[in-house]
Amino acid sequence: MLLLPPKEDKEEESDEIQELDLGIVGHGPAGFTAALYASRAAISVACIGRDYGGQMGLALEIENYPGFENISGIDLADKMRTQAEKFGTKIIYGEISTIVITEDNRFLIKSDMGNYIVTALIIATGGTHRELDVPGEKEFIGRGVSYCATCDAAFFKEKTVVVVGSGDAAATGTLALSDVGAKKIYWTSRSDYLKCERIYVERAEERENIEILYNKQVTEIKGTNTVEEIVFNDGTTLKADGIFAEIGALPNTELAEALGCELEDNLVRIDDDCNTSVPGVFAAGDVTSKIKNPLNRQITTSVGLATIAAISAAEFLQARKTIKKD
Amino acid sequence: MLLLPPKEDKEEESDEIQELDLGIVGHGPAGFTAALYASRAAISVACIGRDYGGQMGLALEIENYPGFENISGIDLADKMRTQAEKFGTKIIYGEISTIVITEDNRFLIKSDMGNYIVTALIIATGGTHRELDVPGEKEFIGRGVSYCATCDAAFFKEKTVVVVGSGDAAATGTLALSDVGAKKIYWTSRSDYLKCERIYVERAEERENIEILYNKQVTEIKGTNTVEEIVFNDGTTLKADGIFAEIGALPNTELAEALGCELEDNLVRIDDDCNTSVPGVFAAGDVTSKIKNPLNRQITTSVGLATIAAISAAEFLQARKTIKKD
Repeated sequence: MLLLPPKEDKEEESDEIQELDLGIVGHGPAGFTAALYASRAAISVACIGRDYGGQMGLALEIENYPGFENISGIDLADKMRTQAEKFGTKIIYGEISTIVITEDNRFLIKSDMGNYIVTALIIATGGTHRELDVPGEKEFIGRGVSYCATCDAAFFKEKTVVVVGSGDAAATGTLALSDVGAKKIYWTSRSDYLKCERIYVERAEERENIEILYNKQVTEIKGTNTVEEIVFNDGTTLKADGIFAEIGALPNTELAEALGCELEDNLVRIDDDCNTSVPGVFAAGDVTSKIKNPLNRQITTSVGLATIAAISAAEFLQARKTIKKD
Repeated sequence: MLLLPPKEDKEEESDEIQELDLGIVGHGPAGFTAALYASRAAISVACIGRDYGGQMGLALEIENYPGFENISGIDLADKMRTQAEKFGTKIIYGEISTIVITEDNRFLIKSDMGNYIVTALIIATGGTHRELDVPGEKEFIGRGVSYCATCDAAFFKEKTVVVVGSGDAAATGTLALSDVGAKKIYWTSRSDYLKCERIYVERAEERENIEILYNKQVTEIKGTNTVEEIVFNDGTTLKADGIFAEIGALPNTELAEALGCELEDNLVRIDDDCNTSVPGVFAAGDVTSKIKNPLNRQITTSVGLATIAAISAAEFLQARKTIKKD
């Protein structure tokens, strides 16, 4: 357990530190939903994040969040954020450097946008794109190598590209590249099937500029100034101007680990009430052990867990009598 | 395990039975979300239900489903249903009489709107209002006794009413009665606090026609032709024209139990992948053991579990090779 600086130093810091009931880390659907529920419970909330909308924010089109036939990730993030703000949540656009447990078992959050002491904490830090880990990858980042087809598709009009991955992100990325008029998209899966929703496969099969290739694993990315050629494990190569690695996400567990939260399969272990192993620390969304199957990384599952985390945090705060009860 | 009728009878029935991959029971947010995800996975789906929108359908105003600042339960149900239908879900407005396991381990669903044989099943039957179980209750149903303030509030303009319950449904019902101009609303909790979201308590305290009473448990409902007086356990009485029992829901586990699904705390026991104890039967929403805390009965938690149930059902169907894999 990390402690606050000794008392001599406290005085100096104190006027910069805001005290609140609850800190939420993450600006994805889990973070904003937890903020909505908590602030409706009359809890004072700071919701701190750096990547607006989380991975949802990268989606050009969302069709599988119930209630919206079609909406962009940013638009949905805007709706969720303003809904939470309406009930009093403070949205902080900042980078957290550390969170430490104080002497009185609260949490000191240090960020580049201010410091906060909170009585309870919800970790909703989600995940970050996974890398291919092959020669040439790091060298050509931003020069043909991308981790977000829906973000960068527009740069590849009339170009030939390779999409790597078999999940929903690879699927929607492939379709986005087709939509913007890429000349040719090779959608490659390392196995003999695609894990994504079937609707995407059906759509991809109807497009003339998409070709699906199975059992293709990238082993090298070649080029001079920009990407020129992709090499696969079967010895074949494809000429391409770009490559999109959409091979899933690694959970952002660092902050939870630093607080002492136990992991399970590299995810923050939570119980059915979203309690982590550290009292007062709750977790929700893709960073948690409830989302082991990568296919379950959905907006719906994040808002569900975030609701439970917020309700559990409210009960924890009531038990600590930090919010008043009639 | 119940079996199909012997072969002699099969011939006659067969032309009436539709064969599909997946049957979903329930027309609430869990049912429609499971239908959306399953039909996007190119699974053929019949979603059968009787109560449109489930308990969500009874809500006049929803403010805590992320993405919608304010929407009625019926409007949200319409959006969710049409979204699922767009991808091929058949919505069946019918009452199920029985579901039996067939000789080849599929499920025969018999309903007043047709019979279906499905390979996998998702139980999303939610809950039904709980009764007060006091003298006078049954006698005055529809004559002052109601279980849905948001449904029946309009009949109580300029009337005096008692609301029983301390959760969100009691809270929103109390506010709805205030909105329609009830003369006086006594909002009663059997304990010394209210379990609902704090925002509702704050709003109720601002209304002149609402009075919150704690430690009041109804023991009798009196009247002649209609409700006239409510008796409490402390010997006190209140003159009232109506009483709204908003004391939670009992899970509708009958169909799951008849299939042999094991229960846990009177809820259908599921694991993190929404598997029940019966292979091929999945469950989601308020009927499941993942929603033990009544406060967690939310649209968000239902859509989250329903997503997982649909993805697990899709994997089950793929393993049984009933849907084709490229």
